[in-house]
Parts: sequence; C-alpha cells; structure tokens
Amino acid sequence: MLKKYRVSNLYQGRLERGDDLLEKITEIINNAGIKLGRITAIGAVEKAKLSFYNQNRKVYEEDEINKPLEIVSLLGNISLKDNEIMIHAHIALGDEDGRLYGGHLTTGTRVFACEFIIEEFEGEEVERKYDEKTGLPLWRCQ
Amino acid sequence: MLKKYRVSNLYQGRLERGDDLLEKITEIINNAGIKLGRITAIGAVEKAKLSFYNQNRKVYEEDEINKPLEIVSLLGNISLKDNEIMIHAHIALGDEDGRLYGGHLTTGTRVFACEFIIEEFEGEEVERKYDEKTGLPLWRCQ
Amino acid sequence: MLKKYRVSNLYQGRLERGDDLLEKITEIINNAGIKLGRITAIGAVEKAKLSFYNQNRKVYEEDEINKPLEIVSLLGNISLKDNEIMIHAHIALGDEDGRLYGGHLTTGTRVFACEFIIEEFEGEEVERKYDEKTGLPLWRCQ
Repeated sequence: MLKKYRVSNLYQGRLERGDDLLEKITEIINNAGIKLGRITAIGAVEKAKLSFYNQNRKVYEEDEINKPLEIVSLLGNISLKDNEIMIHAHIALGDEDGRLYGGHLTTGTRVFACEFIIEEFEGEEVERKYDEKTGLPLWRCQ
Repeated sequence: MLKKYRVSNLYQGRLERGDDLLEKITEIINNAGIKLGRITAIGAVEKAKLSFYNQNRKVYEEDEINKPLEIVSLLGNISLKDNEIMIHAHIALGDEDGRLYGGHLTTGTRVFACEFIIEEFEGEEVERKYDEKTGLPLWRCQ
Repeated sequence: MLKKYRVSNLYQGRLERGDDLLEKITEIINNAGIKLGRITAIGAVEKAKLSFYNQNRKVYEEDEINKPLEIVSLLGNISLKDNEIMIHAHIALGDEDGRLYGGHLTTGTRVFACEFIIEEFEGEEVERKYDEKTGLPLWRCQ
C-alpha cells in the first residue's frame, strides 16, 4: 500500500519561451534517465491545453485556453507505463483577473517562462497498469 | 521561529476509488507511525467536501461540491494535536470546464483516483495548541 | 540545462496574524542565510495582493482582493538577484464560496495563519538575469 523511497537527486532548471511544457519536461526527464520522482514548477504560459477525465464515459475531454496565464502550481509525478516514463502532472493557471483554471496537463501548453524542481526517487520502480474501476493507467503499488 | 528537520523517509502510494480522501490518508499515516511531515497529491474525486474558516466568527463553514473533479493540487502537513496525528491539508479541485474550487479538506471527499507522496520529517515534534488571535489550533513552534 | 542539488536543511515554521506574507518569509529566509531552495505553505490571509505578468506589455499588473481567503497552495523558489535573495512565489487562494484566485505573490498580502516548509538546497548558486525574450529576471542556469 505504501512503498518507501528516498530522494537520490534534486534538479533545478527552467524552460524557454515557446517550449511545449509537457513535451519539454518529458524530454529533460528522459535525457536525465529519471524514472521515478516528483516535479513542481511555477511560471507562465502563452496558452494552455488541459484535460478533464470524464468519470462516467471514461475518456479525457480536452479544453484549450488561448491566452496568457500564470502557472500558479504545477505538481506532478514520474513513473513508468509500458516501459516508458510517464509524467502525470496537474496544473493551476491564473488569468489577468486572478481567476484560476486547472486540470490534467497535456501536450499543447506553450511556455512563457517556467522554473521547475525535479526530485528523483530511489526505490522500486512504479509501473502503471490498466485499472478496471476507473479506466485509468494507475500505479500497481498496492 | 524556525525549526530544523530532515526527511527521514519518503513514501509513495495511491488510494482506491471510493476511499474517503482525508480519512484514508490519516489511516495510512497512522499505520506507518508518521508524526511529522508533508503530503502532496494529485488525482480526481467523485465529490468533495471543503471548509472555509470564517475569520470573524471563528468557525469553519462547510461546502459540498457534488460532482467529479480533478485534484489539481493537494498540499498538507502532518503534526500532532492532543497527542493524535492531525493532517492539515488544502486542496484545489477542477471541474469539467477547468474552473477551480478549493479550500480546507474535510471528511466527505470521495476518491476517484489519488496518487500521493508523503515525506516523513525527523526532528522535534510539533504540537498544535489553541491560538487566541485566530481561534485555530496552531503550531507551537515560535 | 539541468543543475544538480541536494536538500541540505529543511525548516518548518509559521507566520503570525498580521504579518506581511512575502516580506516576513523573505526576512526569515534572509535571517537563516538560505540562498537557494523551495518553499511550500498553506494557511489563510486577511487580504491579498497578487500580480499578473502582462506578456505583451512586459509589466506586472497588480490586483487586490480585500477579503479573507484560504491559502490553498503557496509554491515558491529561492534564488539570487543582484546579490540579494529573491523569493519567487505563486499562490492559490480560496474564498468563502470555494472559488479560487491566484497569481504572483507580492507585498501587501496579510497573513491570518500560515504554516510553511522551507527546503534549503546545496549546490551552485542560481542568479537571476534580465531575459530579452520575456522581459523577466530569469535563472541563468541554461
């Protein structure tokens, strides 16, 4: 139910204006050989693409926000799915009126500026497998 | 004012669909014997129950959101109150239109899926005591 | 692109009712001699002052919210600018209806209660320098 890890490495960096937020983070994590861990970030985006999991229909529904937004929080984890790393990240974004939007981060969110911290965990690898109850690829750690 | 700790253990796990988010997390932390630390999580809930502290009346006011929501961020700490562990967690939740809701997490929030990371801290225990200025049980660490 | 650090110290503490959130946190971090790291916090404020970076005009626009709000998440980093420490923090705040507001934290946000965790990083110092592409003082870590 509960697996024990330790932080083996901590990395800090930033993305460049124009980067695709999820794709670039995934590339960086892949290049560093990180297979397990956590990511947090703040910054801003030029536009965002989020998704919301429809729990009844068991599909992700996408939503685009075509305006500049602050990254109020990005919180994600790193694990494996089909032997590839998968970044599962949720994001809260604020507009010029301070109103917040958020959900599951997908490809299509374009960075304005982004400062991130990645913690790499050491311990048993976590593999995602299809879960009947939700229709989602969830951690097989129970 | 500032107390020094170190992370002694880091745990990762997930909750099951149908779990009460706050109750299950509290049970897991109790079973692991963790008395001090931090929790972060992302996922989704079937419905939520949050509270907002009325600073004038000094009471918590509850608010139910009876629909599926993404857990955009859950951020909480672990300390002691009356010799029991107390999880103090705040949560941001997003609906199908990407609109965010949030506040103080209470019993009554039902998990759809939830991936959490718990960091256990080593150091002097932190006890909550009634604070005159706010009417809240706050850390006696100053 | 990616710099490696380790957590050298972890601190926990709380702010007092009436403190200016950003000023007090900056003072605490300065007094502790921390030059690099991350901060997370939850709590509540009596009123808030946030800003939003106008990506076209390249200026911060301020926004005041004159009512009690829960700190649903505060996520920030610590680095250097002109040899002084700079706390770059984004915050999500919830009102009595569970509606969220958020953005870049500025001076003028008054604490009701606030429990924070600061992680101090050991490694090469990170200096902010003017970035042409955004008009912002960004990390020179690439």
